[in-house]
Amino acid sequence: MKMMRVPLAGALALGRALALAPARSSSLRAPARAFASRMPEVEDAGLKWSTGTGAPLECRAAVAFGVDDLRTTDVVVAAPKAGEVRLRVVANALCHTDIYTLEGSDPEGLFPSILGHEAGAIVESVGEGVTSVKVGDKVIPCYTPQCREADCIFCASPKTNLCPKIRGTQGRGVMPDGTTRFKTADGAPVAHFMGCSTFAEYTVVSEISCAKIDDSADLAKVCMLGCGVATGWGAAWKTANMEADASVAVFGCGAVGLAVIQAAKIRGARRIFAVDTNPDKFDIATEFGATDCVNPLELDGPVAAHLVGLTQWGVDYTFDCTGNTEVMRAALECAHRGWGVSVVIGVAAAGHEIATRPFQLVTGRTWKGTAFGGFKSRDEVPELVDRVLAGDLPIDAYITHNFDGVDNTHAAIDALHGGDCLRAVVSY
Amino acid sequence: MKMMRVPLAGALALGRALALAPARSSSLRAPARAFASRMPEVEDAGLKWSTGTGAPLECRAAVAFGVDDLRTTDVVVAAPKAGEVRLRVVANALCHTDIYTLEGSDPEGLFPSILGHEAGAIVESVGEGVTSVKVGDKVIPCYTPQCREADCIFCASPKTNLCPKIRGTQGRGVMPDGTTRFKTADGAPVAHFMGCSTFAEYTVVSEISCAKIDDSADLAKVCMLGCGVATGWGAAWKTANMEADASVAVFGCGAVGLAVIQAAKIRGARRIFAVDTNPDKFDIATEFGATDCVNPLELDGPVAAHLVGLTQWGVDYTFDCTGNTEVMRAALECAHRGWGVSVVIGVAAAGHEIATRPFQLVTGRTWKGTAFGGFKSRDEVPELVDRVLAGDLPIDAYITHNFDGVDNTHAAIDALHGGDCLRAVVSY
Repeated sequence: MKMMRVPLAGALALGRALALAPARSSSLRAPARAFASRMPEVEDAGLKWSTGTGAPLECRAAVAFGVDDLRTTDVVVAAPKAGEVRLRVVANALCHTDIYTLEGSDPEGLFPSILGHEAGAIVESVGEGVTSVKVGDKVIPCYTPQCREADCIFCASPKTNLCPKIRGTQGRGVMPDGTTRFKTADGAPVAHFMGCSTFAEYTVVSEISCAKIDDSADLAKVCMLGCGVATGWGAAWKTANMEADASVAVFGCGAVGLAVIQAAKIRGARRIFAVDTNPDKFDIATEFGATDCVNPLELDGPVAAHLVGLTQWGVDYTFDCTGNTEVMRAALECAHRGWGVSVVIGVAAAGHEIATRPFQLVTGRTWKGTAFGGFKSRDEVPELVDRVLAGDLPIDAYITHNFDGVDNTHAAIDALHGGDCLRAVVSY
Repeated sequence: MKMMRVPLAGALALGRALALAPARSSSLRAPARAFASRMPEVEDAGLKWSTGTGAPLECRAAVAFGVDDLRTTDVVVAAPKAGEVRLRVVANALCHTDIYTLEGSDPEGLFPSILGHEAGAIVESVGEGVTSVKVGDKVIPCYTPQCREADCIFCASPKTNLCPKIRGTQGRGVMPDGTTRFKTADGAPVAHFMGCSTFAEYTVVSEISCAKIDDSADLAKVCMLGCGVATGWGAAWKTANMEADASVAVFGCGAVGLAVIQAAKIRGARRIFAVDTNPDKFDIATEFGATDCVNPLELDGPVAAHLVGLTQWGVDYTFDCTGNTEVMRAALECAHRGWGVSVVIGVAAAGHEIATRPFQLVTGRTWKGTAFGGFKSRDEVPELVDRVLAGDLPIDAYITHNFDGVDNTHAAIDALHGGDCLRAVVSY
């Protein structure tokens, strides 16, 4: 079986794919009604700059001007409009989704844009009507918002975190009113990214994307809860909701995979298989809780058959953290006969599909997926931060590289391309 | 979208595919250990006749001598050996799986064999050590057994009904000791089918395949709980475990689909879409509880997009009762964003696979399957019969055709091929 050389690459394209949901899925497109009535004049128009009632400010940002064309430059960040918050970004953890878009792998990637979506920040100013955060609050911007409105069936349901309130505009790289808050020094509008855009010293996000966290949190660490680490935890605890004594297999041992392993161990898993084509990952996987390490490249046969052979009937819970659709199939097919659950975390490259014989489902396997681990962002990210602060959820080991200043975003990207990087955090 | 002309054809191939699991799934094959130690001399040998300690008896049976070669003839039925039960079959409801095998569509179908697996019967004699049924008991033979042994992790788990105790031999058309209890009048051994073989006036099954039911049950009616109707109920109640007020879409309105509709209505579903390419099914679907009927052939676009359009975000629970893998995909893709569950009931033709974009799972859809509705046969089939007897679960409407005598199995098959047949019951 062939696995991706960089197991995380696909996994962390998740957020981007989610943000683009409406554009990609015409048959499932929701009516673009949320803001059409408020700002009809900008609906479906080109990228437009727009400022709030406060003062714009200038700062440094790493702007993606095109494919593989990331340049640090001065940008102007407009004041937040109604329902928006301007943030001073304190630390940004690089995620492969950012790289995926920068490299041009996302066919709907927008340029110029300010990438970045896994960050810790402090509220600099708030727009009209903002009540849930105030100036000086520490927040984690979340690419999955939580509007909490009475008519949002998604926020009202305990089954999902996929609030679609700003999905359409977020996917188009603009704020909910259809305009951008970023422009370059020469006045060209710059697109937002995943509702976060944290490759900048300042950014503007929707209030409903801001998870207010404890004032004592170290933003250079808890920034990681904005995407990968939280996703892995939630995949294990919420999406799979595994019980103690379960067996678990994790395909891909980057940060997301390790977070699944960590969460499985905390939940009391009996046996945890770490699967990766890079054996350099096995030491840390073991530290996080893996009991068995499997390198598919060293096997004579398919990895799914190998895992079934080791367990007789398969593994109770399996997780794809690679984005490779063949790995997703293997993860499903080594799930336990009768009750195995396989969770897709990685997001596949455009056009790739998963497949299996329906017999795999009829004999009791369940195929699921997770987005941001199923966590409702404003309710649950603060709780995760509290557990980190209480010492229940160690996260220091995920940070393998630290850099200072937006100018070093390039260096962080280079680090992430190396095989020894889990998370590279850039502090601004 | 193209659907099968006979929506049930694939759906009811389920039982047969299950029975053949070990042979078909080499990578997931269980060690064939259960009986090897007891009867090593017959392991993997050809079909052998073997009788118990009691007297063989002669009776009429519809024997499948080859593809489309079903002939009623005299057969000799051996006495039950240890752990086995000989049954007088009172009524047999034809199921498409029988036809599927007779027609040669199952590449692993065995000939000569005695087909039939949806029946009601009375215990004629029992082999050594049988304790759970006695002579004269009414039973429903079940193709999914329930061994209840302490070391059976499947019987011990509330999550599944897929007891694998006799899976290997059942798939090979023999009793657990590796031999058959049937032979023709001229002495040629005849294979068993799905652990039931109810196209015969007498048959031998394992004790663990016998669900003992209430003495007052009408076997010519409750025989249907041996497969299709129970499967549809369980898919809704156990596999999907839908809540009241859910929306439901059922693809394929044969007996299984109608049973899903009936079960959904009983559970309190708010809206039930009946989807079929044969509009003649819509009247009875509506009688069973459908609120909306959809004919994919009358739509301009894909049926999945149509259902999403009618519901804004999709349908809470969807069921494939066709066996067509394209329909399975449509059923998944019209499931509700965030929490939709799609259940595969039909079994696809050999080699056919299901596929979708993983994005469908990442945005909250779950893909599952069901076998015999998830019911543990010996525990739960008697409970279903009790509910039928209490009047809670009307089943008369499923029976559209009645015939008398094994000789009329042919006539019942002809009826099942007509578009107006749900269940054809042959009483012996």
